[in-house]
Amino acid sequence: MDMLWSGWGDPAKATPLPETVIGLLRDLLGVTPRATAPVELTDLRVPETPLTAAARQALHEAVGGAEHVRTDAESRIRRTRGKSTPDLLRIRAGDVGDVPAAVVLPASHEEVLAVLHACSAHDLALVPFGGGTSVVGGLAPDQPAFRRRPVVALDLRRMNGLLALDPVSRTATLQPGLRAPDAEALLAAHGFTLGHFPQSYEWATLGGFAAARSSGQASAGYGRFDDMVLGLTLATPEGTLEAGRAPRSAAGPDLRQLVLGSEGVFGVITSVTVRLRPLPAVRVYEGWRFTSFEEGATALRRLAQDGPRPTVLRLSDETETLIGLAQPDAIGASGTLESAGCQAITGYEGTAEDVAHRRQRAAAVLRACGGTYLGEEPGERWAHGRYAAPYLRDALLDAGAFAETLETAAFWSRVPELYAAVRRALTTTLTEAGTPPLVMCHISHVYENGASLYFTVVSAQGEDPVAHWAPAKRAASEAILGAGGTISHHHGVGTDHRDGYVREAGPLGVEALRAVKRRLDPAGVLNPGVLLPLD
Amino acid sequence: MDMLWSGWGDPAKATPLPETVIGLLRDLLGVTPRATAPVELTDLRVPETPLTAAARQALHEAVGGAEHVRTDAESRIRRTRGKSTPDLLRIRAGDVGDVPAAVVLPASHEEVLAVLHACSAHDLALVPFGGGTSVVGGLAPDQPAFRRRPVVALDLRRMNGLLALDPVSRTATLQPGLRAPDAEALLAAHGFTLGHFPQSYEWATLGGFAAARSSGQASAGYGRFDDMVLGLTLATPEGTLEAGRAPRSAAGPDLRQLVLGSEGVFGVITSVTVRLRPLPAVRVYEGWRFTSFEEGATALRRLAQDGPRPTVLRLSDETETLIGLAQPDAIGASGTLESAGCQAITGYEGTAEDVAHRRQRAAAVLRACGGTYLGEEPGERWAHGRYAAPYLRDALLDAGAFAETLETAAFWSRVPELYAAVRRALTTTLTEAGTPPLVMCHISHVYENGASLYFTVVSAQGEDPVAHWAPAKRAASEAILGAGGTISHHHGVGTDHRDGYVREAGPLGVEALRAVKRRLDPAGVLNPGVLLPLD
Repeated sequence: MDMLWSGWGDPAKATPLPETVIGLLRDLLGVTPRATAPVELTDLRVPETPLTAAARQALHEAVGGAEHVRTDAESRIRRTRGKSTPDLLRIRAGDVGDVPAAVVLPASHEEVLAVLHACSAHDLALVPFGGGTSVVGGLAPDQPAFRRRPVVALDLRRMNGLLALDPVSRTATLQPGLRAPDAEALLAAHGFTLGHFPQSYEWATLGGFAAARSSGQASAGYGRFDDMVLGLTLATPEGTLEAGRAPRSAAGPDLRQLVLGSEGVFGVITSVTVRLRPLPAVRVYEGWRFTSFEEGATALRRLAQDGPRPTVLRLSDETETLIGLAQPDAIGASGTLESAGCQAITGYEGTAEDVAHRRQRAAAVLRACGGTYLGEEPGERWAHGRYAAPYLRDALLDAGAFAETLETAAFWSRVPELYAAVRRALTTTLTEAGTPPLVMCHISHVYENGASLYFTVVSAQGEDPVAHWAPAKRAASEAILGAGGTISHHHGVGTDHRDGYVREAGPLGVEALRAVKRRLDPAGVLNPGVLLPLD
Repeated sequence: MDMLWSGWGDPAKATPLPETVIGLLRDLLGVTPRATAPVELTDLRVPETPLTAAARQALHEAVGGAEHVRTDAESRIRRTRGKSTPDLLRIRAGDVGDVPAAVVLPASHEEVLAVLHACSAHDLALVPFGGGTSVVGGLAPDQPAFRRRPVVALDLRRMNGLLALDPVSRTATLQPGLRAPDAEALLAAHGFTLGHFPQSYEWATLGGFAAARSSGQASAGYGRFDDMVLGLTLATPEGTLEAGRAPRSAAGPDLRQLVLGSEGVFGVITSVTVRLRPLPAVRVYEGWRFTSFEEGATALRRLAQDGPRPTVLRLSDETETLIGLAQPDAIGASGTLESAGCQAITGYEGTAEDVAHRRQRAAAVLRACGGTYLGEEPGERWAHGRYAAPYLRDALLDAGAFAETLETAAFWSRVPELYAAVRRALTTTLTEAGTPPLVMCHISHVYENGASLYFTVVSAQGEDPVAHWAPAKRAASEAILGAGGTISHHHGVGTDHRDGYVREAGPLGVEALRAVKRRLDPAGVLNPGVLLPLD
């Protein structure tokens, strides 16, 4: 099934906002319904494909036939940009000026190599396309590059197999176009799980997880995706690069870590070998309340540093806790939001014995840190709605509101300052622009030495919503870099974070990566302008 | 204090082999005492330094004075090559033909940059020198390059400070020339440990650990050194590269992992930010016996995959177990060695509660896998002698024996085949050369998905011991690559493993790294021929 072309997920799962929430948005944020309805897919007109007959022929040959090279309007519209809020606002407004010239569907590593060869030979750019869930402009190659030559979307959905499974080593080799739920189903048949459950879980692919260093909601227990990857095969315009002969090695720099996070600019990931865990016998999720975000963060730090480590560990700040409760009576008599404290979710997955032990000891730590146990109901509610937020965003956009997320990470000692700085930047910028926002935050990934911060912003849209948001996004990025955070903990760089990334990696870091890029992709075929600035 | 110039460690700790062992070596391996005694340091004559006056002046200026640029014979001899057995055999024979032209001792990142600049300007090569403990030719630049221009050793011992400590984030920033025991002492004053205890612990430096991806004896609990590194500063001929803004990030490839394992060919590591752990309240080491290596390996795998994870986890094969017992009565009536089974060591470090819990549960797993508990005595004995093996090697060389180690790692399902193939390669080659060896092996680093194998070889020396060993080493490397192992799990590549590494990384992997090298070190100043072949 294809995702909703102009929004998120399965259209059948879309639900409109309740009237009470629409009232809340109006009263609290001044949100008013948009005058114009979104366009229909069938109303859109896309430019003729700029592919030459020779280029088209070369692509046909690369993938074994014309049926795997699509130039119809719908196929091209569905691979136009990703799923950031600006992406959605543009596509909902009918902006399809940068549709790809064609969608090419290879079936093997060799066909990917052949497509890359055809692109080099015919001066085409190429954008690898997995689930299409990028929220950082990762599917939108640089505009000057785009205008210079046709862009082909390389849709990897036909490469969706389980290539190998080693139950002794607990590894599996998977193809990049495999969606996460399909991967889980294939592995579950052998008693294993990957344990990677990001919010994009239902749609995102294994190749995308690797290319963009995804991190899932159970990262406390299962690790990040880049922790899971033991091996990679990369198809580049200059040939094949394979990395990962042993779990760990002292043989040179770790080439896996050079491919992970490279966002398709060095090559196309054509297989990933990942570590497996046994399917858990028990899954428990539960809620805790802390009186402040600081108190809760200290509790999470204690667990991250001294254990025991839950499988899922999250903490919402006061605003997110209140909004998450979705209770109209949380609005105080004065019309302002009153604090309901900060809610944490702890989850445990594993054997019955392991879960019981970790749960009991973690509970003691959380209590010692000031936590109040809320039972399993908040945990079950979280688990039930864990992939629902992007649907909610569509409903908010439908209702005329603006909603977007951004995220970062830092060392623990920098987290309070980073939290305050990003909130301040978003609130100040949008308030001065006439649309005071709700800014919510949670910690959802913890490490011994630091944590992520994930912000959700809801406000009125303003006249031109994309332009209206841009200064707030810039201010948030400045605040992140100024307060010692990374420009992205798990969304990636794409084109949206490229300028911040260049500052974070530094001139010599960028130059080192450009040197690799030039060697593996001398014609600059792959994702021009994504991650790294053009030469 | 300086290390023994012609061997390992503190000369005061050297102890000769007991007569019984000498008898064993003679009877079992045909080892006979060498006719000639090793040369004395004062007898050695080194060539005049080839440094020009202008180059010497530029180096003086880079490090703030002539006292930090040494050209005397002893300083240069002490930075000649590393501590592999061939290195020791050559230096003991008085072979100092490739002494460096000078030893330069910078005091800061800026001085390192200035030295690199001086080297570029005066056509010098530079070898970063930490503890000098490389056993893979990591301090021996390629001979053709060496002959082409003078080589300067950059001794980092003056950069041995603790630059910062963040007790909340549990991180510390340390200089590269700091030796591990000094680092532990500085951190212990704040209640922390790094937990990195490789066999080279007493002499190796933090910069070397990072540059060569060291792994310590407590890696099961504390992780490898590359797991511990959160940030790095690299001084390159083209400027400074800094990596590690947050514990983890999705902002591009992980540049830390590009520097880790780069063995000084991209730049000189001038600081490392590492994660800290609290000093353990309790340390317990104990012994277990398994009837076979396979049975023991399965037990280690169970603990690595399903936990609980001891802090130290090692398993010796039958031969190493027997030799480790050092009991002359282990020689059977037939004159052959009889199996004493396979000894494992488990160690636990942490809080009393944590140690008690892990120890109890791990014991249940080990028993279920066929293990017999041997009490704490074997563990204490192992802990007492954990850094002694290199001293033993000196004594073996003194007695006329040859002794060397090599190591690899692989996924669990490949471990049995890898073990058999390397043993066979070493035994066959040395037996055919007339010096049948004792080949011992242990597993000392375990992962969910695989493990290391560490081999020790003891034999008679043969007429020309360096040349005699070379075919066996080549055969072992072939066996490693043929059976799916990595060419090194924790010793690194240096020059000794370079050919194998090129095959492991593949042509495009090597080319990607050479592209980085050319960009960061266009004049090829740094460690020419180490890790990567010369252009």
